[in-house]
Amino acid sequence: MPYVNLKITKDGVTKEQKAELVRGITDLLVRVLNKKPEHTHIVIDEIDVENWGYCGVLTSEYRANDKD
Amino acid sequence: MPYVNLKITKDGVTKEQKAELVRGITDLLVRVLNKKPEHTHIVIDEIDVENWGYCGVLTSEYRANDKD
Amino acid sequence: MPYVNLKITKDGVTKEQKAELVRGITDLLVRVLNKKPEHTHIVIDEIDVENWGYCGVLTSEYRANDKD
Amino acid sequence: MPYVNLKITKDGVTKEQKAELVRGITDLLVRVLNKKPEHTHIVIDEIDVENWGYCGVLTSEYRANDKD
Amino acid sequence: MPYVNLKITKDGVTKEQKAELVRGITDLLVRVLNKKPEHTHIVIDEIDVENWGYCGVLTSEYRANDKD
Amino acid sequence: MPYVNLKITKDGVTKEQKAELVRGITDLLVRVLNKKPEHTHIVIDEIDVENWGYCGVLTSEYRANDKD
Repeated sequence: MPYVNLKITKDGVTKEQKAELVRGITDLLVRVLNKKPEHTHIVIDEIDVENWGYCGVLTSEYRANDKD
Repeated sequence: MPYVNLKITKDGVTKEQKAELVRGITDLLVRVLNKKPEHTHIVIDEIDVENWGYCGVLTSEYRANDKD
Repeated sequence: MPYVNLKITKDGVTKEQKAELVRGITDLLVRVLNKKPEHTHIVIDEIDVENWGYCGVLTSEYRANDKD
Repeated sequence: MPYVNLKITKDGVTKEQKAELVRGITDLLVRVLNKKPEHTHIVIDEIDVENWGYCGVLTSEYRANDKD
Repeated sequence: MPYVNLKITKDGVTKEQKAELVRGITDLLVRVLNKKPEHTHIVIDEIDVENWGYCGVLTSEYRANDKD
Repeated sequence: MPYVNLKITKDGVTKEQKAELVRGITDLLVRVLNKKPEHTHIVIDEIDVENWGYCGVLTSEYRANDKD
């Protein structure tokens, strides 16, 4: 039954990292809540830094300021 | 008022299929809940098979294993 | 793989109506996209009319104005 | 067409505050994107502090630590 | 704590407009709910007009009919 | 930046289990994607078994059939 939606910024996350996240979250749900892997769905949304606002500005701008 | 979010894997769903899904879901909400079509919004998210985890692995891997 | 999230206002929808919605959406996904029922999850969120804004006002207010 | 989902912690937000949020977001979408109020839906989800994790802990715990 | 998800149709919204939406929503949450900008995240999803159903049809079709 | 939404059925999950899920997911995001805990938000939605459809029926019914 678990459905997990993971939203992260589009920063070149690799296929291996996505696989590790899916394995880690699924194992956690099996261990803590005794959920079945065959009922567990995880969707990863990669969001453009221009489409993620944080601290009142776009992340693209936030990161530029952070570097200055 | 109904808002429906349909997440499916990115498998080349055609425009006609999307139109059929929208018509079918809208008709269902009208028939079962007497909702107004002009208040009914349906968003279809097509998710890359590398971004959908199922059974502890990425769908791309799940399908490859399924074929073996 | 399909995950469907249906948000409706909390208007006393019955268990039978929810079952009809789940059956209808699942059948539609099987017919149109050849999806497997055992991979299809549907979550119904019932939202208080004070927590659903429409046309710039809360639905509770929108409906009161609609009656006048 | 805009659909907005606002998730906030359940902290006794009043009906008037919700109305102000709905009015403010709708006006912003009209002004910036020229959207129609009658196409704009806003759903406010109030999340229990035990169901919102932040900084690796539940918000209930985060706030208790913050007070110490 | 606020998390806001804004879904709009993919109509060439500019970076400046997105920044204005993020600033406006963040300011509103600070003013109305006294939320901290550094706890406020806003994700903008731009949805293809073929993936947004309204009034029982795809938005692409709805807009074509609207022009006739 | 990560925002995680975990939807599970309302089965009496304890505060300790929720804390363990939040800790586990946050640690995973730090380890795999080097994310900052102070930017990581996790919302747990507990869904009534009558509001979660699976295999074409409500979970309440699915579980009853499963027992027979």
